[in-house]
Amino acid sequence: MTKREQGDAMKVLVLGGDGFCGWPTALHLSARGWEVVIVDNLSRRNIDNELEVQSLTPIRPMGERIAAWRELTGRSIGFVNLTLGRDFERLVQLIRDEVPDSIVHFAEQRAAPYSMKSARHKLYTVDNNLNATHHVLAAIVESGRDVHLAHLGTMGVYGYTTAGLKIPEGYLKVTVDTDFGPTEQEILFPPNPGSIYHMTKTQDALLFQFYAKNDRLRITDLHQGIVWGAQTEQTRMDERLINRFDYDGDYGTVLNRFLMQAAVGYPLTVHGGGGQTRAFIHIQDTVRCVELALQNPPARGDRVKILNQMTESRRVRDLAALVADLTGAEVRNVANPRQEADENELVVSNDQFRDLGLNPITLAEGLMDDVAAIARQYADRADLSRVPCVSAWNADRAEAIAEAKKTPAPVRVVHG
Amino acid sequence: MTKREQGDAMKVLVLGGDGFCGWPTALHLSARGWEVVIVDNLSRRNIDNELEVQSLTPIRPMGERIAAWRELTGRSIGFVNLTLGRDFERLVQLIRDEVPDSIVHFAEQRAAPYSMKSARHKLYTVDNNLNATHHVLAAIVESGRDVHLAHLGTMGVYGYTTAGLKIPEGYLKVTVDTDFGPTEQEILFPPNPGSIYHMTKTQDALLFQFYAKNDRLRITDLHQGIVWGAQTEQTRMDERLINRFDYDGDYGTVLNRFLMQAAVGYPLTVHGGGGQTRAFIHIQDTVRCVELALQNPPARGDRVKILNQMTESRRVRDLAALVADLTGAEVRNVANPRQEADENELVVSNDQFRDLGLNPITLAEGLMDDVAAIARQYADRADLSRVPCVSAWNADRAEAIAEAKKTPAPVRVVHG
Repeated sequence: MTKREQGDAMKVLVLGGDGFCGWPTALHLSARGWEVVIVDNLSRRNIDNELEVQSLTPIRPMGERIAAWRELTGRSIGFVNLTLGRDFERLVQLIRDEVPDSIVHFAEQRAAPYSMKSARHKLYTVDNNLNATHHVLAAIVESGRDVHLAHLGTMGVYGYTTAGLKIPEGYLKVTVDTDFGPTEQEILFPPNPGSIYHMTKTQDALLFQFYAKNDRLRITDLHQGIVWGAQTEQTRMDERLINRFDYDGDYGTVLNRFLMQAAVGYPLTVHGGGGQTRAFIHIQDTVRCVELALQNPPARGDRVKILNQMTESRRVRDLAALVADLTGAEVRNVANPRQEADENELVVSNDQFRDLGLNPITLAEGLMDDVAAIARQYADRADLSRVPCVSAWNADRAEAIAEAKKTPAPVRVVHG
Repeated sequence: MTKREQGDAMKVLVLGGDGFCGWPTALHLSARGWEVVIVDNLSRRNIDNELEVQSLTPIRPMGERIAAWRELTGRSIGFVNLTLGRDFERLVQLIRDEVPDSIVHFAEQRAAPYSMKSARHKLYTVDNNLNATHHVLAAIVESGRDVHLAHLGTMGVYGYTTAGLKIPEGYLKVTVDTDFGPTEQEILFPPNPGSIYHMTKTQDALLFQFYAKNDRLRITDLHQGIVWGAQTEQTRMDERLINRFDYDGDYGTVLNRFLMQAAVGYPLTVHGGGGQTRAFIHIQDTVRCVELALQNPPARGDRVKILNQMTESRRVRDLAALVADLTGAEVRNVANPRQEADENELVVSNDQFRDLGLNPITLAEGLMDDVAAIARQYADRADLSRVPCVSAWNADRAEAIAEAKKTPAPVRVVHG
């Protein structure tokens, strides 16, 4: 009989549990009866210090967050300050001591622009992300425990876009010519990452394939779209539980940035023609998907289970138009700092999460009002000089920075 | 007019130029008129210290090697002791100061068994290899120079073996089904690495793809077979130039190990049934291929140029039989410490090097006598307790270690 069948709580380590996705996931799992231990070195807060920017929302220190959660719900969440990729022995000991059923791994540097900011940022992102992921895998093997690992990947690992190809969930059926005629094979989707950050996720994928094959680790890789929204059922219970909200040119993601820019009267800055199509998911669906993934792990000896964790695709210029229609904001096209195609199609399969019962929140459902309200409420915390993306992908694209700097100061600032 | 057309010497940095392939490559390029600077942190010698083993051949310190080369030929080779992946600023400055035309990158931990020895060895191999490669790429971009990078990869990145498929050079033509019908694409060959070491090379490949696309770096990746032989035209000029020869269970490679084992009267240890087919190349051809690759770089903006640097494929058991026939050695099958299939086919394309004029040295050409002579000459330096492979790929394969330990002591030892 499994632990769950016996009615015992399942235990999960949430690596990176202080971040934008990690914190609401930790709360959601705790609310749903999981025993949760957060592992985080607070690197995301430290990067805010480096970039001289802060979350638009007033996030609280981890100690206060956890105390508030306990006060409100009676539930305890553990916290271990540990740098993954550095302190291997402590990580192994943690797994042996806590005996988790699952580990959720959010603990990577996750901003594409930050990863392209300078040579130092490229080096940091590769070193940090690869060693973090590898230490977790090697530590599970070393611990001798059968722990299911669920990793937060990205839709950005795809990018090999063949016209008319619906992006499958991780694996692609192909036909190759052999001496015996055409032969069908299923391969890991050929990656074509668009930044150093995205590239690290494709390198992670090779680690997962190897450890699943060589050590029969049970691994799920969640290829997540761009997360929008700010709050979940739990984070909005109390201001001390409030989630991080990034609006700066490095960490702010496209839809949330537009909503925040509209709220403070800053023109919506669209990179290039805005023909880029991206996949999206609401933060509330992120936490639901992670729980569904934990409840449905692969069996020992299975290949890596890959799910597309996204709910809809939109063109950037269509999003800008949507937000402009809602708010009256102005749209401004600026040179694209990214090395990428001006236009791309993106049709994505997400059958697995739908089959598991996910009922997605869509852009049409009015939750954009929630985000806009958050943005207005905390507008006085915003430093509008941090809105433009100032990380250029290469020397050719550096001119985009100059262009972005020419974007005029905001025409009006609306306070809560 | 190019430097070469002007008759000026081309300059090359040989990263890892103290190693088994790096040292003879440095000498070959120097002999052929290149200005050579070796960059190495002597990690391979330090690993010998860790493993309590030494090169069968009495390799000299770098200072003595370089002085001897200068004394014999009048040619200078530079040497910089620098740890790639750690000291980025010094690497950038080195590229700016030396202004090399090319960089050859051998500077990675290259033994599969060593990479699987323990968790610590796995972590070291990933951290060392990925950061070394990434620092080199980022440093070339940062230097602002247009430097051609030639990297020593491995045939071991392939491994997705479809029966009847001849392994192409790096890229595979596949057909995928789309809304518009079957569509042909050329993709990076789907990797299926057999060890942590081999996996790092597949991760390197993703770095190369990214930097070629994003920064238009000129990159050649040489997927090399197992290198056999000991000496090249240059290393045999003087004993002070002698090349490294590894025979231990971690760094010794299959054919050289057999020849050495035969020379000292140690049974030829075949892992499992010996049905594994491997690709081979003689060390003399390695150095020729590297020069051919440097003379034929891709153009700026080209995709990564990938060449299979191997000259023939053989089954391990056939190699053992060949060596046994030549020497009268006994063959002994031991449990396989590797997690791999017992039998595999391997048919490989190497058209590019053949088209560039490579006239391969084959196993049939009697150079095996050279290796056997080296092995006999230095047999008294051998520690036969180091011959068995004691690194198991996983817990299931660990029994192979116990089996290997039961292999009886050598029946006779033949001295020079």
